Amino acid sequence: MKPTELKPMRVGLLGLGVVGGGTWKVLTANAEEIARRAGRRIEVVAVVARDLDKARRLVGDSLKLSTDGMDLVRDPDIDVVVEVVGGDTLAREWVMEAIAQGKHVVTANKALLAIHGNEIFAAAHARGVMVAFEAAVAGGIPIIKAIREGLTANRIQWLAGIINGTTNFILSEMRNRRLPFAEALADAQRLGYAEADPTFDIEGIDAAHKLTLLASLAFGVPVQFNKTYTEGIAALSPEDLRHANRLGYRIKLLGITRRRDDGIELRVHPTLVSKECLLANVEGAMNAVLVHGDMVGQTLYYGQGAGELPTASSVVADLIDVARLQGAGREQRVPHLAFQPESMADIPVLPMAEVHSSYYLRMRVQDRPGVLADLARILADAGISIGSMFQVPHGSTEADLIFLSHEAREGDVDDAIGQIRGLPFVRSEITRLRVENAL
Amino acid sequence: MKPTELKPMRVGLLGLGVVGGGTWKVLTANAEEIARRAGRRIEVVAVVARDLDKARRLVGDSLKLSTDGMDLVRDPDIDVVVEVVGGDTLAREWVMEAIAQGKHVVTANKALLAIHGNEIFAAAHARGVMVAFEAAVAGGIPIIKAIREGLTANRIQWLAGIINGTTNFILSEMRNRRLPFAEALADAQRLGYAEADPTFDIEGIDAAHKLTLLASLAFGVPVQFNKTYTEGIAALSPEDLRHANRLGYRIKLLGITRRRDDGIELRVHPTLVSKECLLANVEGAMNAVLVHGDMVGQTLYYGQGAGELPTASSVVADLIDVARLQGAGREQRVPHLAFQPESMADIPVLPMAEVHSSYYLRMRVQDRPGVLADLARILADAGISIGSMFQVPHGSTEADLIFLSHEAREGDVDDAIGQIRGLPFVRSEITRLRVENAL
Repeated sequence: MKPTELKPMRVGLLGLGVVGGGTWKVLTANAEEIARRAGRRIEVVAVVARDLDKARRLVGDSLKLSTDGMDLVRDPDIDVVVEVVGGDTLAREWVMEAIAQGKHVVTANKALLAIHGNEIFAAAHARGVMVAFEAAVAGGIPIIKAIREGLTANRIQWLAGIINGTTNFILSEMRNRRLPFAEALADAQRLGYAEADPTFDIEGIDAAHKLTLLASLAFGVPVQFNKTYTEGIAALSPEDLRHANRLGYRIKLLGITRRRDDGIELRVHPTLVSKECLLANVEGAMNAVLVHGDMVGQTLYYGQGAGELPTASSVVADLIDVARLQGAGREQRVPHLAFQPESMADIPVLPMAEVHSSYYLRMRVQDRPGVLADLARILADAGISIGSMFQVPHGSTEADLIFLSHEAREGDVDDAIGQIRGLPFVRSEITRLRVENAL
Repeated sequence: MKPTELKPMRVGLLGLGVVGGGTWKVLTANAEEIARRAGRRIEVVAVVARDLDKARRLVGDSLKLSTDGMDLVRDPDIDVVVEVVGGDTLAREWVMEAIAQGKHVVTANKALLAIHGNEIFAAAHARGVMVAFEAAVAGGIPIIKAIREGLTANRIQWLAGIINGTTNFILSEMRNRRLPFAEALADAQRLGYAEADPTFDIEGIDAAHKLTLLASLAFGVPVQFNKTYTEGIAALSPEDLRHANRLGYRIKLLGITRRRDDGIELRVHPTLVSKECLLANVEGAMNAVLVHGDMVGQTLYYGQGAGELPTASSVVADLIDVARLQGAGREQRVPHLAFQPESMADIPVLPMAEVHSSYYLRMRVQDRPGVLADLARILADAGISIGSMFQVPHGSTEADLIFLSHEAREGDVDDAIGQIRGLPFVRSEITRLRVENAL
């Protein structure tokens, strides 16, 4: 059986932007290596793009080119549809129709799956087709395969990841070049790491889309983007980065999900992590995910989380999986969300008040005797132990106080902050950041 | 279809040592989670162990217990054989017979596969069974799945890994506690990180077994342990670690394989790596593998490379893959060595003289004018550029010279060393270590 003897798999490409163009390039440049592995060729036979002239310049004249996704997903010549248009409206219609047509789907669209994943995976399961999405989380890192297939022997207990390169780049710039947020963001935009409208990235929404998917794979729960707590990095000040540094920490935007007895934590927010841990040393636009399984302990996966070719690397890996398994039965394929659909768990997502974490608190106070005693009393009464504290004078009459707490319940911390806010000697809003010591 | 509705997969366990016992524990402790994922139960029905009383205390009385592996692999009640006895004699006979009997095999045995892999995989392919070996490289890290399935879109260009925890522990101890090799080894033995006979680990043989397998997966070449260059860590002195540190490097035992136009490099040796790179910061008994694909760039995989439960985590993940794919056709399974057997490449393994690397050289010389000029001339004539040099006085008449070269051909370096060795002012053997700057 030579690689060319099996029938080529015919791909329809929905979208020829960054990831779509990358997918074309990878399939073209590495056609031989891919056939050596997959045992058959993978050929793009149809492309949907907004600008057909531009598309023609990249892929030539020999393919079917169209601007209409519905045409493509109904084309009987196509075995598998690659959806890389993004968004959750047209993409959803096209993907659902592709499934209805019995076509396999490979997508890089985290927003689509985070919002409509349960519907899409149920339809795919019922129709007996695969929806593969390695490229939707952490770009070129095969993190979905690692969790869904590599760590299957484990009860996964928690995972924490840097899963948005834009914000990690901005935070690296803020720290290394001591820039305020707005300047670091402008840099990121100038260099192409952030979009003109950076909302999805800097508010943590993109990371929350991805975290939602990882949590489903880790714990076997439905996709629940609407229950994911999301806090971005726009409010971070360079002085918080500096104070964190003094305490032995760096600040990273992490997606964290953890299984507890009473439910799962599901949250994206800026987080203090010890300088010693590997995640703290993931710089620039790189991504990394740390996964803790009960048997394997900690494993870490690191690489480029975005970009044309790294993301296409995952799209094409999925295509090779689909090529291999298209003739297999459903029970021979990995379940979409790692667990058999009838074995999904109904574990509640915990409200943030029930989250347990350590906390970093910063506030400006009047600099006079008794202030620390009053604050310490309020925190102690709320059951919050302070691990370390230091103060930075501000002028002659005020000072900034920085506290690092031991693990506490977030609801208790918020109650204490509410009380502190009302004290006469407190002169600023209270900055509260979460600290992860388990990494 | 409930998880219990599919027939359980029946496992025969060859060996109940560290990994075998761990496999039993993982399958028992996480039986529910595994069934939720795999869609069926995975049950150990027979065990071969040397000490049956001890075996009974762990697994109870309800299984078939025996001391004879041939009995087990011929048992018609068994679907899949887990080989965790180690070694390459009995293990080979039992694995080959299991394959002949049409049983799938899961093994953690890198020595077996590094030496007899080509024979074993060919037999398995011919008989239509799977031989899975995630646990054979880097313990609990799903590195084989990552390379074989996650990075399939790439032409892999090189990989470099810390794939032996014992030596990484010893090197960490030598550096952090400034111990000579022998004391760090004794520590490792006391703590259970090194065996009474540590030869396989400290001479790099275990790492070479693993590297051999990774190279096959990366490039699609046959398993070629006998062509793998192997150099251990016993000759390293604390002063080399200190000098490396001064130059901005740490010393790690790396397995490195790289594809070049004229062949592949395949080598295990102590290596200077920049302190900034992630591999340099992998401490203690942890493992990590850095893989460079042409499309994805660098990706890194990190975790526990040995130990009862991490290794069993990989054995059981393989069992779940086998459970899923046992009813599938051969073309629906991932090829054993990542590439279709008829597409394996015949790329030669390069002799070490043809390897290109940077080099660290240390020698003791008579401390008098002209010495450096003579040395620099010999190196220059051999085409070797020096990037940095420093000297450390030794008494009043001698000094240690440390050179760091730019990239050079190893044969040229060896020729130069041969000439230097004959110089009248050279007072010691010449220490030569390789430096990797691409990581």
